[in-house]
Amino acid sequence: MTVVLEMVLSVVLLSGGLDSSTALATVVEKGNEAIALTFDYGQRHRKELESASRVARHYGVRSHIIIELDIGRHLRSSLTNATMTIPTDGNDRDGVGGIPDTYVPGRNIVFLSVASAIAEGLGADEAVIAANAIDYSGYPDCTPDCINAFQKTLAVGTKRGVSGRPVRVEAPLLNMTKADIVREAVRLSVPIHLTWSCYMGGDRACGKCDSCRLRLRGFEEAGEEDPLPYEGGNR
Amino acid sequence: MTVVLEMVLSVVLLSGGLDSSTALATVVEKGNEAIALTFDYGQRHRKELESASRVARHYGVRSHIIIELDIGRHLRSSLTNATMTIPTDGNDRDGVGGIPDTYVPGRNIVFLSVASAIAEGLGADEAVIAANAIDYSGYPDCTPDCINAFQKTLAVGTKRGVSGRPVRVEAPLLNMTKADIVREAVRLSVPIHLTWSCYMGGDRACGKCDSCRLRLRGFEEAGEEDPLPYEGGNR
Repeated sequence: MTVVLEMVLSVVLLSGGLDSSTALATVVEKGNEAIALTFDYGQRHRKELESASRVARHYGVRSHIIIELDIGRHLRSSLTNATMTIPTDGNDRDGVGGIPDTYVPGRNIVFLSVASAIAEGLGADEAVIAANAIDYSGYPDCTPDCINAFQKTLAVGTKRGVSGRPVRVEAPLLNMTKADIVREAVRLSVPIHLTWSCYMGGDRACGKCDSCRLRLRGFEEAGEEDPLPYEGGNR
Repeated sequence: MTVVLEMVLSVVLLSGGLDSSTALATVVEKGNEAIALTFDYGQRHRKELESASRVARHYGVRSHIIIELDIGRHLRSSLTNATMTIPTDGNDRDGVGGIPDTYVPGRNIVFLSVASAIAEGLGADEAVIAANAIDYSGYPDCTPDCINAFQKTLAVGTKRGVSGRPVRVEAPLLNMTKADIVREAVRLSVPIHLTWSCYMGGDRACGKCDSCRLRLRGFEEAGEEDPLPYEGGNR
């Protein structure tokens, strides 16, 4: 008897943060083979890129693709624009549905487009994104509606879609709270000390930006301790 | 009396070919201000890039953004992969809905994602793509279904969409035949001699690849002469 095991191949968007590292861990837990995909898009917190490399190495991914995509300077966002201030008080919303100005226009749509193009090109089964619609920063490109609309675009607009097997868009953390993600990371032994979430990109995490505050609240609610060093000592 | 003229700002995907140059011309004819956007994605026919620059200069666009996006080597397409043969007989279809292997997975979806992200970032009104669903090469990402699904993604997945004014995706050539496009190019005095369509990228157009054959047939059907030099003389 011959047993043919078909391994699922996943292209995982990996920023180096806690969420995408946990998304990668869920893929590895399922026994899928993973290709990590990281964008160097001119983000201010470039420490993310080092974290992504270390997390990818930790998981022994088949390959880690780093794509330089120099759109940062064409986009108005405090994450890519050194003349803007990164909000730290959770109140720097500009009135459009509570979307903060760390919003990078269409970022996840661009990332998903490239991830699914590469997945199609390499014959992979799925593109995995750590979008999260519960304890998230209010970005519209992290919502189920956006993921679903994009999946529909792949179904009608790609060769794989036309043949009835479009690249699947998977968002394994979509319905988790930040505390759920921390618990999942702990359960899956994610190397949390290698991840980086702070928007500031200093030696220690600032503890004040939206991303740090969300992360810290997640650890607190999950009753876990964040191993990262924070400015002013850990809490 | 004060008259306030609101100028429409368009981000136009400009490859340097006949179609995208004509799309740019239609935008200019409407009186819109244009930003040209060209991708250097590792295409074999790099002569396109020079043509794009010359056409952008001809039209005096507000700016010409060239984005390096090094995904070519990760995608299996004869347009980016020097080990594959570019089809020249119009029959190199692989059975999936007649899609040729010059298909670059998800290319237009990636291009539209970046164009609309930049449009949103710059406060532009529309992203313009020269997709054409009539005399086209059989690429699924050139169809009205794909454009519409992508527009829906912008509506639900971007800040502008959430605020009720998503970046518009315009495809002014969508329902034109190649002959219609040639006629439109002539009517609008497009500098056809500056454009480049051949996939091969030699000094003269090859006249044999899918792109050349479509272009030549368009000129023939429109009763116009293509000013480009072709291998073996013009026809």
